[in-house]
Amino acid sequence: MEKLTIVKVGGKVVEEEESLKKLLTDFRFISGYKILVHGGGRSATNLAAQMGVETKMVEGRRITDKQTLDIVTMVYAGLVNKNIVAGLQSLGCNAVGFTGADMDIIRSFKRPVKDIDYGFVGDITEVNTREICWLLEQNIVPVIAPLTHDGKGHLLNTNADTIASELAIAFSNHYNVTLVYCFEKNGVLLNPEDDSSVIRDLDRKSYLEYKKQGVITEGMIPKLDNAFKALGNGATRVLITKAENLTKSAATGTSIIKDEV
Amino acid sequence: MEKLTIVKVGGKVVEEEESLKKLLTDFRFISGYKILVHGGGRSATNLAAQMGVETKMVEGRRITDKQTLDIVTMVYAGLVNKNIVAGLQSLGCNAVGFTGADMDIIRSFKRPVKDIDYGFVGDITEVNTREICWLLEQNIVPVIAPLTHDGKGHLLNTNADTIASELAIAFSNHYNVTLVYCFEKNGVLLNPEDDSSVIRDLDRKSYLEYKKQGVITEGMIPKLDNAFKALGNGATRVLITKAENLTKSAATGTSIIKDEV
Repeated sequence: MEKLTIVKVGGKVVEEEESLKKLLTDFRFISGYKILVHGGGRSATNLAAQMGVETKMVEGRRITDKQTLDIVTMVYAGLVNKNIVAGLQSLGCNAVGFTGADMDIIRSFKRPVKDIDYGFVGDITEVNTREICWLLEQNIVPVIAPLTHDGKGHLLNTNADTIASELAIAFSNHYNVTLVYCFEKNGVLLNPEDDSSVIRDLDRKSYLEYKKQGVITEGMIPKLDNAFKALGNGATRVLITKAENLTKSAATGTSIIKDEV
Repeated sequence: MEKLTIVKVGGKVVEEEESLKKLLTDFRFISGYKILVHGGGRSATNLAAQMGVETKMVEGRRITDKQTLDIVTMVYAGLVNKNIVAGLQSLGCNAVGFTGADMDIIRSFKRPVKDIDYGFVGDITEVNTREICWLLEQNIVPVIAPLTHDGKGHLLNTNADTIASELAIAFSNHYNVTLVYCFEKNGVLLNPEDDSSVIRDLDRKSYLEYKKQGVITEGMIPKLDNAFKALGNGATRVLITKAENLTKSAATGTSIIKDEV
Protein backbone atom coordinates (compact mmCIF):
# COMPACT_ATOMS: atom_id res chain seq x y z
CA MET A 1 0.00 0.00 0.00
CA GLU A 2 1.10 3.55 -0.72
CA LYS A 3 2.01 5.74 2.23
CA LEU A 4 -0.30 8.61 3.23
CA THR A 5 0.70 11.17 5.86
CA ILE A 6 -2.07 13.23 7.41
CA VAL A 7 -0.73 16.29 9.22
CA LYS A 8 -2.91 18.33 11.53
CA VAL A 9 -1.57 21.76 12.39
CA GLY A 10 -3.01 23.95 15.09
CA GLY A 11 -4.08 27.52 14.78
CA LYS A 12 -1.03 29.51 15.80
CA VAL A 13 1.37 27.88 13.33
CA VAL A 14 -0.82 28.57 10.29
CA GLU A 15 -1.93 32.03 11.37
CA GLU A 16 1.42 33.77 11.45
CA GLU A 17 3.11 34.43 8.15
CA GLU A 18 6.61 33.35 9.18
CA SER A 19 5.65 30.11 10.95
CA LEU A 20 3.23 29.24 8.15
CA LYS A 21 5.96 29.65 5.55
CA LYS A 22 8.27 27.43 7.61
CA LEU A 23 5.54 24.82 8.10
CA LEU A 24 4.66 24.64 4.40
CA THR A 25 8.32 24.34 3.45
CA ASP A 26 8.70 21.38 5.83
CA PHE A 27 5.35 19.85 4.89
CA ARG A 28 6.24 19.89 1.21
CA PHE A 29 9.20 17.56 1.84
CA ILE A 30 7.08 14.78 3.33
CA SER A 31 7.36 11.89 0.88
CA GLY A 32 4.35 9.98 -0.41
CA TYR A 33 0.76 11.15 -0.45
CA LYS A 34 -0.20 13.79 2.06
CA ILE A 35 -3.16 15.71 3.47
CA LEU A 36 -3.02 18.84 5.63
CA VAL A 37 -5.77 19.53 8.18
CA HIS A 38 -5.70 22.97 9.77
CA GLY A 39 -7.36 25.07 12.46
CA GLY A 40 -7.71 28.82 12.61
CA GLY A 41 -9.30 29.63 15.94
CA ARG A 42 -7.16 32.63 16.79
CA SER A 43 -8.00 34.41 13.53
CA ALA A 44 -11.68 33.60 14.07
CA THR A 45 -11.54 35.12 17.54
CA ASN A 46 -9.76 38.19 16.15
CA LEU A 47 -12.28 38.68 13.36
CA ALA A 48 -15.16 38.26 15.80
CA ALA A 49 -13.65 40.95 18.03
CA GLN A 50 -13.19 43.27 15.06
CA MET A 51 -16.85 42.72 14.12
CA GLY A 52 -17.99 43.26 17.69
CA VAL A 53 -19.15 39.66 18.06
CA GLU A 54 -18.52 38.03 21.42
CA THR A 55 -16.57 34.74 21.43
CA LYS A 56 -17.92 32.16 23.87
CA MET A 57 -15.79 29.14 24.74
CA VAL A 58 -16.75 26.22 26.98
CA GLU A 59 -13.93 23.86 27.93
CA GLY A 60 -11.86 25.06 25.00
CA ARG A 61 -14.70 24.55 22.51
CA ARG A 62 -16.25 27.44 20.61
CA ILE A 63 -19.97 27.99 21.01
CA THR A 64 -21.05 28.42 17.40
CA ASP A 65 -24.16 30.54 16.95
CA LYS A 66 -25.21 31.57 13.40
CA GLN A 67 -23.00 34.65 13.36
CA THR A 68 -20.02 32.69 14.67
CA LEU A 69 -20.63 29.99 12.05
CA ASP A 70 -20.35 32.67 9.35
CA ILE A 71 -17.14 33.92 10.96
CA VAL A 72 -15.47 30.50 11.14
CA THR A 73 -16.63 29.75 7.59
CA MET A 74 -14.96 32.94 6.39
CA VAL A 75 -11.77 32.39 8.38
CA TYR A 76 -11.28 28.61 8.09
CA ALA A 77 -12.55 27.97 4.55
CA GLY A 78 -11.55 31.38 3.18
CA LEU A 79 -8.64 33.22 4.76
CA VAL A 80 -6.63 30.38 6.32
CA ASN A 81 -7.39 27.62 3.81
CA LYS A 82 -6.76 29.65 0.65
CA ASN A 83 -3.57 31.25 1.96
CA ILE A 84 -2.22 27.78 2.72
CA VAL A 85 -3.21 26.61 -0.76
CA ALA A 86 -1.60 29.61 -2.47
CA GLY A 87 1.50 29.18 -0.29
CA LEU A 88 1.87 25.50 -1.20
CA GLN A 89 1.34 26.32 -4.89
CA SER A 90 4.23 28.78 -4.68
CA LEU A 91 6.42 25.91 -3.42
CA GLY A 92 5.47 23.72 -6.37
CA CYS A 93 3.05 21.63 -4.31
CA ASN A 94 -0.28 21.27 -6.13
CA ALA A 95 -2.67 21.87 -3.23
CA VAL A 96 -6.45 22.08 -3.16
CA GLY A 97 -8.57 23.36 -0.29
CA PHE A 98 -11.73 21.67 0.91
CA THR A 99 -14.30 21.72 3.65
CA GLY A 100 -16.28 18.59 4.44
CA ALA A 101 -19.15 19.94 2.29
CA ASP A 102 -16.99 19.91 -0.84
CA MET A 103 -17.59 16.70 -2.82
CA ASP A 104 -19.50 15.55 0.26
CA ILE A 105 -16.18 14.54 1.83
CA ILE A 106 -17.27 14.70 5.49
CA ARG A 107 -20.85 14.46 6.71
CA SER A 108 -21.89 15.23 10.25
CA PHE A 109 -24.95 15.94 12.32
CA LYS A 110 -25.52 18.92 14.56
CA ARG A 111 -24.48 17.97 18.08
CA PRO A 112 -27.61 17.38 20.21
CA VAL A 113 -28.05 19.78 23.11
CA LYS A 114 -27.40 18.11 26.46
CA ASP A 115 -25.83 20.19 29.22
CA ILE A 116 -24.33 22.65 26.76
CA ASP A 117 -25.70 23.99 23.47
CA TYR A 118 -22.64 24.13 21.24
CA GLY A 119 -24.72 25.55 18.39
CA PHE A 120 -23.67 24.76 14.81
CA VAL A 121 -21.11 22.14 15.74
CA GLY A 122 -20.95 18.84 13.88
CA ASP A 123 -20.17 15.31 14.96
CA ILE A 124 -18.83 13.27 12.05
CA THR A 125 -20.87 10.38 10.64
CA GLU A 126 -19.23 9.61 7.31
CA VAL A 127 -16.05 10.19 5.31
CA ASN A 128 -16.07 9.74 1.53
CA THR A 129 -12.63 8.85 0.22
CA ARG A 130 -13.26 8.16 -3.46
CA GLU A 131 -12.48 11.49 -5.13
CA ILE A 132 -9.71 12.32 -2.66
CA CYS A 133 -7.98 9.03 -3.50
CA TRP A 134 -8.01 9.98 -7.17
CA LEU A 135 -6.63 13.44 -6.39
CA LEU A 136 -3.86 11.99 -4.19
CA GLU A 137 -2.91 9.67 -7.03
CA GLN A 138 -2.53 12.76 -9.27
CA ASN A 139 -0.07 14.10 -6.68
CA ILE A 140 -2.55 16.71 -5.54
CA VAL A 141 -2.46 17.64 -1.85
CA PRO A 142 -5.81 18.24 -0.11
CA VAL A 143 -5.89 20.95 2.56
CA ILE A 144 -8.88 20.49 4.83
CA ALA A 145 -10.61 23.27 6.80
CA PRO A 146 -12.41 22.24 10.01
CA LEU A 147 -15.97 22.47 8.69
CA THR A 148 -18.34 19.67 7.75
CA HIS A 149 -21.96 19.59 6.56
CA ASP A 150 -25.16 17.79 7.40
CA GLY A 151 -26.35 17.16 3.84
CA LYS A 152 -29.33 19.44 4.48
CA GLY A 153 -27.57 22.66 3.51
CA HIS A 154 -25.91 23.46 6.82
CA LEU A 155 -22.21 23.86 7.40
CA LEU A 156 -21.07 22.74 10.85
CA ASN A 157 -18.00 23.75 12.83
CA THR A 158 -15.99 20.60 13.56
CA ASN A 159 -12.90 19.98 15.65
CA ALA A 160 -9.82 19.73 13.43
CA ASP A 161 -8.18 17.03 15.60
CA THR A 162 -11.28 14.87 15.17
CA ILE A 163 -11.35 15.47 11.41
CA ALA A 164 -7.71 14.38 11.16
CA SER A 165 -8.42 11.23 13.18
CA GLU A 166 -11.52 10.33 11.13
CA LEU A 167 -9.65 10.90 7.87
CA ALA A 168 -6.82 8.66 9.13
CA ILE A 169 -9.32 5.91 9.89
CA ALA A 170 -11.19 6.20 6.57
CA PHE A 171 -8.05 6.33 4.44
CA SER A 172 -6.44 3.39 6.22
CA ASN A 173 -8.63 1.22 3.96
CA HIS A 174 -6.61 2.50 1.00
CA TYR A 175 -3.20 3.52 2.31
CA ASN A 176 -0.60 2.96 4.97
CA VAL A 177 -1.54 5.99 7.12
CA THR A 178 0.68 8.06 9.41
CA LEU A 179 -1.19 10.68 11.44
CA VAL A 180 0.82 13.58 12.84
CA TYR A 181 -0.59 16.09 15.30
CA CYS A 182 1.56 19.21 15.27
CA PHE A 183 1.33 21.69 18.08
CA GLU A 184 3.51 24.17 19.96
CA LYS A 185 5.27 21.59 22.21
CA ASN A 186 7.84 18.93 21.34
CA GLY A 187 5.36 16.20 22.22
CA VAL A 188 3.33 15.01 25.19
CA LEU A 189 5.29 16.27 28.20
CA LEU A 190 5.76 14.82 31.67
CA ASN A 191 6.29 18.36 32.88
CA PRO A 192 4.43 21.03 30.87
CA GLU A 193 7.13 23.56 31.83
CA ASP A 194 9.95 21.43 30.42
CA ASP A 195 9.89 21.00 26.65
CA SER A 196 12.56 18.27 26.89
CA SER A 197 10.41 16.02 29.12
CA VAL A 198 8.81 14.36 26.10
CA ILE A 199 7.18 10.97 26.59
CA ARG A 200 8.74 9.02 23.71
CA ASP A 201 6.18 6.22 23.50
CA LEU A 202 2.72 6.36 24.94
CA ASP A 203 0.35 3.40 25.10
CA ARG A 204 -3.22 3.56 26.32
CA LYS A 205 -2.44 1.98 29.65
CA SER A 206 0.19 4.62 30.49
CA TYR A 207 -2.09 7.36 29.09
CA LEU A 208 -4.87 6.40 31.51
CA GLU A 209 -2.36 6.28 34.33
CA TYR A 210 -0.93 9.74 33.47
CA LYS A 211 -4.46 11.11 33.24
CA LYS A 212 -5.28 9.74 36.69
CA GLN A 213 -2.11 11.29 38.10
CA GLY A 214 -2.95 14.66 36.52
CA VAL A 215 0.21 14.59 34.36
CA ILE A 216 -1.88 14.75 31.18
CA THR A 217 -4.69 17.31 31.40
CA GLU A 218 -7.08 19.60 29.57
CA GLY A 219 -6.51 20.15 25.85
CA MET A 220 -4.23 17.12 25.55
CA ILE A 221 -7.02 14.74 26.54
CA PRO A 222 -9.32 15.09 23.49
CA LYS A 223 -6.22 15.17 21.25
CA LEU A 224 -4.94 11.91 22.73
CA ASP A 225 -8.40 10.34 22.58
CA ASN A 226 -8.43 11.13 18.85
CA ALA A 227 -4.89 9.79 18.50
CA PHE A 228 -5.71 6.48 20.19
CA LYS A 229 -8.94 6.17 18.22
CA ALA A 230 -7.02 6.51 14.93
CA LEU A 231 -4.37 4.00 16.03
CA GLY A 232 -7.03 1.53 17.14
CA ASN A 233 -8.92 1.81 13.85
CA GLY A 234 -6.39 1.43 11.09
CA ALA A 235 -3.72 4.13 11.29
CA THR A 236 -0.26 2.59 11.18
CA ARG A 237 1.52 5.31 13.11
CA VAL A 238 0.36 8.28 15.18
CA LEU A 239 2.77 10.98 16.28
CA ILE A 240 2.40 14.13 18.39
CA THR A 241 5.13 16.68 17.86
CA LYS A 242 6.17 20.23 17.10
CA ALA A 243 5.58 21.40 13.52
CA GLU A 244 9.28 22.06 12.98
CA ASN A 245 10.00 18.37 13.72
CA LEU A 246 7.87 17.33 10.73
CA THR A 247 10.74 16.31 8.51
CA LYS A 248 12.94 14.99 11.33
CA SER A 249 12.89 11.38 12.50
CA ALA A 250 10.06 9.99 14.60
CA ALA A 251 12.27 10.19 17.69
CA THR A 252 11.56 13.90 18.15
CA GLY A 253 7.98 13.60 19.39
CA THR A 254 5.57 11.31 21.20
CA SER A 255 4.63 8.11 19.38
CA ILE A 256 1.22 6.75 20.26
CA ILE A 257 1.64 2.98 20.49
CA LYS A 258 -0.56 -0.03 21.06
CA ASP A 259 -0.65 -1.71 24.45
CA GLU A 260 1.52 -4.76 24.77
CA VAL A 261 -0.79 -7.77 24.77
CA MET B 1 -18.64 16.46 -27.49
CA GLU B 2 -20.42 16.55 -24.14
CA LYS B 3 -22.29 19.70 -23.24
CA LEU B 4 -20.91 22.00 -20.52
CA THR B 5 -22.90 24.95 -19.20
CA ILE B 6 -20.99 27.64 -17.32
CA VAL B 7 -23.28 29.89 -15.31
CA LYS B 8 -22.07 33.13 -13.80
CA VAL B 9 -24.30 34.61 -11.13
CA GLY B 10 -23.90 38.07 -9.74
CA GLY B 11 -23.67 39.09 -6.16
CA LYS B 12 -27.21 39.88 -5.16
CA VAL B 13 -28.71 36.56 -6.25
CA VAL B 14 -26.25 34.44 -4.25
CA GLU B 15 -26.16 36.71 -1.21
CA GLU B 16 -29.81 36.50 -0.17
CA GLU B 17 -31.02 33.23 1.25
CA GLU B 18 -34.30 33.06 -0.68
CA SER B 19 -32.94 34.00 -4.10
CA LEU B 20 -29.94 31.71 -3.59
CA LYS B 21 -32.19 28.76 -2.83
CA LYS B 22 -34.24 29.51 -5.95
CA LEU B 23 -31.11 29.84 -8.07
CA LEU B 24 -29.61 26.57 -6.87
CA THR B 25 -32.87 24.74 -7.44
CA ASP B 26 -32.96 26.02 -11.04
CA PHE B 27 -29.23 25.47 -11.59
CA ARG B 28 -29.49 21.87 -10.48
CA PHE B 29 -31.88 21.08 -13.35
CA ILE B 30 -29.46 22.16 -16.07
CA SER B 31 -28.63 18.99 -17.99
CA GLY B 32 -25.07 17.94 -18.84
CA TYR B 33 -21.90 19.07 -17.14
CA LYS B 34 -22.02 22.40 -15.34
CA ILE B 35 -19.86 24.94 -13.53
CA LEU B 36 -21.10 27.82 -11.37
CA VAL B 37 -19.06 31.03 -11.10
CA HIS B 38 -20.20 33.48 -8.45
CA GLY B 39 -19.57 36.98 -7.12
CA GLY B 40 -20.12 38.27 -3.62
CA GLY B 41 -19.34 41.97 -3.71
CA ARG B 42 -22.25 43.13 -1.56
CA SER B 43 -21.30 40.82 1.31
CA ALA B 44 -17.67 41.93 1.01
CA THR B 45 -18.73 45.56 1.25
CA ASN B 46 -20.92 44.74 4.26
CA LEU B 47 -18.15 42.88 6.06
CA ALA B 48 -15.70 45.69 5.34
CA ALA B 49 -18.15 48.18 6.85
CA GLN B 50 -18.63 45.99 9.92
CA MET B 51 -14.84 45.80 10.32
CA GLY B 52 -14.47 49.54 9.84
CA VAL B 53 -12.59 49.12 6.57
CA GLU B 54 -13.39 51.61 3.83
CA THR B 55 -14.50 50.22 0.46
CA LYS B 56 -13.02 52.08 -2.51
CA MET B 57 -14.48 51.52 -5.96
CA VAL B 58 -13.25 52.98 -9.25
CA GLU B 59 -15.56 52.51 -12.25
CA GLY B 60 -17.35 49.67 -10.51
CA ARG B 61 -14.08 47.87 -9.67
CA ARG B 62 -12.97 47.28 -6.10
CA ILE B 63 -9.58 48.69 -5.10
CA THR B 64 -8.05 45.71 -3.32
CA ASP B 65 -5.47 46.63 -0.70
CA LYS B 66 -4.12 43.88 1.62
CA GLN B 67 -6.95 44.22 4.13
CA THR B 68 -9.57 44.19 1.36
CA LEU B 69 -7.92 41.11 -0.18
CA ASP B 70 -8.36 39.32 3.16
CA ILE B 71 -11.99 40.41 3.25
CA VAL B 72 -12.83 39.21 -0.27
CA THR B 73 -10.94 35.96 0.40
CA MET B 74 -13.10 35.38 3.48
CA VAL B 75 -16.35 36.33 1.78
CA TYR B 76 -15.88 34.86 -1.72
CA ALA B 77 -13.92 31.67 -0.94
CA GLY B 78 -15.45 31.15 2.51
CA LEU B 79 -18.93 32.47 3.20
CA VAL B 80 -20.46 32.63 -0.27
CA ASN B 81 -18.67 29.68 -1.88
CA LYS B 82 -19.22 27.20 0.94
CA ASN B 83 -22.84 28.12 1.46
CA ILE B 84 -23.47 27.51 -2.25
CA VAL B 85 -21.67 24.17 -2.02
CA ALA B 86 -23.62 23.07 1.07
CA GLY B 87 -26.86 24.26 -0.57
CA LEU B 88 -26.19 22.26 -3.75
CA GLN B 89 -25.27 19.19 -1.68
CA SER B 90 -28.64 19.41 0.06
CA LEU B 91 -30.27 19.26 -3.40
CA GLY B 92 -28.37 16.10 -4.30
CA CYS B 93 -25.91 17.99 -6.52
CA ASN B 94 -22.33 16.96 -5.70
CA ALA B 95 -20.66 20.38 -5.69
CA VAL B 96 -17.10 21.39 -4.87
CA GLY B 97 -15.85 24.92 -4.27
CA PHE B 98 -12.62 26.29 -5.71
CA THR B 99 -10.63 29.45 -6.16
CA GLY B 100 -8.14 29.72 -8.98
CA ALA B 101 -5.36 28.78 -6.53
CA ASP B 102 -6.89 25.36 -5.89
CA MET B 103 -5.23 22.75 -8.10
CA ASP B 104 -3.65 25.73 -9.87
CA ILE B 105 -6.87 26.12 -11.90
CA ILE B 106 -6.46 29.80 -12.77
CA ARG B 107 -3.18 31.71 -12.80
CA SER B 108 -2.95 35.45 -13.08
CA PHE B 109 -0.54 38.30 -12.58
CA LYS B 110 -1.06 41.38 -10.46
CA ARG B 111 -2.42 44.13 -12.67
CA PRO B 112 0.33 46.65 -13.41
CA VAL B 113 -0.27 50.15 -12.07
CA LYS B 114 -1.09 52.64 -14.83
CA ASP B 115 -3.54 55.43 -14.07
CA ILE B 116 -5.13 53.50 -11.22
CA ASP B 117 -3.56 51.17 -8.66
CA TYR B 118 -6.17 48.42 -8.32
CA GLY B 119 -4.04 46.68 -5.70
CA PHE B 120 -4.24 42.87 -5.44
CA VAL B 121 -6.25 42.38 -8.61
CA GLY B 122 -5.33 39.65 -11.06
CA ASP B 123 -5.41 39.45 -14.85
CA ILE B 124 -5.73 35.85 -16.00
CA THR B 125 -2.87 34.19 -17.87
CA GLU B 126 -3.70 30.49 -17.77
CA VAL B 127 -6.55 28.06 -17.10
CA ASN B 128 -5.80 24.42 -16.25
CA THR B 129 -8.66 22.14 -17.24
CA ARG B 130 -7.28 18.66 -16.56
CA GLU B 131 -8.53 17.90 -13.04
CA ILE B 132 -11.79 19.80 -13.56
CA CYS B 133 -12.54 17.66 -16.62
CA TRP B 134 -12.10 14.53 -14.51
CA LEU B 135 -14.37 15.94 -11.79
CA LEU B 136 -17.05 16.92 -14.34
CA GLU B 137 -16.94 13.39 -15.71
CA GLN B 138 -17.65 12.11 -12.17
CA ASN B 139 -20.78 14.34 -12.20
CA ILE B 140 -19.18 16.71 -9.73
CA VAL B 141 -20.10 20.39 -10.10
CA PRO B 142 -17.33 22.96 -9.57
CA VAL B 143 -18.33 26.24 -7.92
CA ILE B 144 -15.74 28.93 -8.58
CA ALA B 145 -15.06 31.95 -6.37
CA PRO B 146 -13.63 35.05 -8.08
CA LEU B 147 -10.06 34.74 -6.82
CA THR B 148 -6.98 33.61 -8.72
CA HIS B 149 -3.31 33.30 -7.79
CA ASP B 150 0.05 34.31 -9.21
CA GLY B 151 1.93 31.09 -8.40
CA LYS B 152 4.14 33.05 -5.99
CA GLY B 153 1.87 32.66 -3.00
CA HIS B 154 -0.46 35.59 -3.63
CA LEU B 155 -4.20 35.39 -4.06
CA LEU B 156 -5.60 37.99 -6.43
CA ASN B 157 -9.11 39.42 -6.66
CA THR B 158 -10.41 38.72 -10.17
CA ASN B 159 -13.59 39.77 -11.95
CA ALA B 160 -16.10 36.90 -11.99
CA ASP B 161 -17.41 37.76 -15.48
CA THR B 162 -13.86 37.47 -16.81
CA ILE B 163 -13.31 34.16 -15.01
CA ALA B 164 -16.50 32.76 -16.55
CA SER B 165 -15.41 33.89 -20.01
CA GLU B 166 -11.88 32.46 -19.65
CA LEU B 167 -13.26 29.15 -18.38
CA ALA B 168 -15.67 29.02 -21.34
CA ILE B 169 -12.75 29.51 -23.72
CA ALA B 170 -10.49 26.95 -22.04
CA PHE B 171 -13.17 24.26 -21.74
CA SER B 172 -14.32 24.71 -25.34
CA ASN B 173 -11.34 22.49 -26.23
CA HIS B 174 -13.09 19.65 -24.41
CA TYR B 175 -16.80 20.35 -24.45
CA ASN B 176 -19.59 22.06 -26.29
CA VAL B 177 -19.77 25.14 -24.05
CA THR B 178 -22.75 27.35 -23.25
CA LEU B 179 -21.92 30.43 -21.17
CA VAL B 180 -24.75 32.10 -19.28
CA TYR B 181 -24.39 35.44 -17.53
CA CYS B 182 -27.19 35.81 -14.99
CA PHE B 183 -28.01 39.20 -13.56
CA GLU B 184 -31.00 41.12 -12.26
CA LYS B 185 -32.44 42.07 -15.68
CA ASN B 186 -34.14 39.89 -18.30
CA GLY B 187 -31.29 40.51 -20.72
CA VAL B 188 -29.56 43.40 -22.46
CA LEU B 189 -32.24 46.10 -22.59
CA LEU B 190 -32.93 48.78 -25.18
CA ASN B 191 -34.46 50.81 -22.38
CA PRO B 192 -32.97 50.14 -18.93
CA GLU B 193 -36.30 51.13 -17.34
CA ASP B 194 -38.27 48.56 -19.31
CA ASP B 195 -37.49 44.94 -18.46
CA SER B 196 -39.45 43.77 -21.52
CA SER B 197 -37.23 45.69 -23.98
CA VAL B 198 -34.80 42.78 -24.27
CA ILE B 199 -32.52 42.64 -27.30
CA ARG B 200 -33.08 39.04 -28.43
CA ASP B 201 -29.94 38.63 -30.54
CA LEU B 202 -26.90 40.82 -30.30
CA ASP B 203 -23.96 40.65 -32.70
CA ARG B 204 -20.78 42.68 -32.34
CA LYS B 205 -21.71 45.13 -35.05
CA SER B 206 -24.99 46.05 -33.32
CA TYR B 207 -23.21 46.08 -29.94
CA LEU B 208 -20.73 48.69 -31.14
CA GLU B 209 -23.59 50.68 -32.63
CA TYR B 210 -25.62 50.55 -29.38
CA LYS B 211 -22.53 51.56 -27.44
CA LYS B 212 -22.00 54.55 -29.71
CA GLN B 213 -25.65 55.57 -29.28
CA GLY B 214 -25.36 55.27 -25.48
CA VAL B 215 -28.01 52.53 -25.34
CA ILE B 216 -25.50 50.09 -23.78
CA THR B 217 -23.47 51.67 -21.02
CA GLU B 218 -21.41 51.21 -17.87
CA GLY B 219 -21.46 47.76 -16.23
CA MET B 220 -22.88 46.09 -19.34
CA ILE B 221 -19.81 46.99 -21.38
CA PRO B 222 -17.19 44.79 -19.68
CA LYS B 223 -19.80 42.00 -19.38
CA LEU B 224 -20.50 42.15 -23.12
CA ASP B 225 -16.80 42.36 -23.94
CA ASN B 226 -16.33 39.14 -21.97
CA ALA B 227 -19.35 37.60 -23.71
CA PHE B 228 -18.06 38.41 -27.20
CA LYS B 229 -14.57 37.22 -26.29
CA ALA B 230 -15.94 33.83 -25.21
CA LEU B 231 -18.07 33.50 -28.36
CA GLY B 232 -15.15 34.45 -30.57
CA ASN B 233 -12.85 31.90 -28.90
CA GLY B 234 -14.71 28.64 -28.77
CA ALA B 235 -17.94 28.99 -26.77
CA THR B 236 -20.88 27.64 -28.76
CA ARG B 237 -23.54 29.79 -27.16
CA VAL B 238 -23.47 32.86 -24.91
CA LEU B 239 -26.59 34.10 -23.17
CA ILE B 240 -27.32 37.04 -20.88
CA THR B 241 -30.45 36.66 -18.80
CA LYS B 242 -32.16 36.73 -15.42
CA ALA B 243 -31.26 33.88 -13.04
CA GLU B 244 -34.85 32.70 -12.88
CA ASN B 245 -34.81 32.14 -16.66
CA LEU B 246 -32.02 29.58 -16.28
CA THR B 247 -34.16 26.54 -16.98
CA LYS B 248 -36.42 28.28 -19.52
CA SER B 249 -35.73 28.35 -23.23
CA ALA B 250 -33.06 30.54 -24.75
CA ALA B 251 -35.74 32.96 -25.96
CA THR B 252 -35.99 34.62 -22.54
CA GLY B 253 -32.71 36.51 -22.64
CA THR B 254 -30.16 38.10 -24.94
CA SER B 255 -28.21 35.72 -27.18
CA ILE B 256 -24.78 36.92 -28.16
CA ILE B 257 -24.33 35.95 -31.79
CA LYS B 258 -21.61 36.13 -34.42
CA ASP B 259 -21.69 38.81 -37.07
CA GLU B 260 -23.09 37.71 -40.39
CA VAL B 261 -20.16 37.36 -42.77
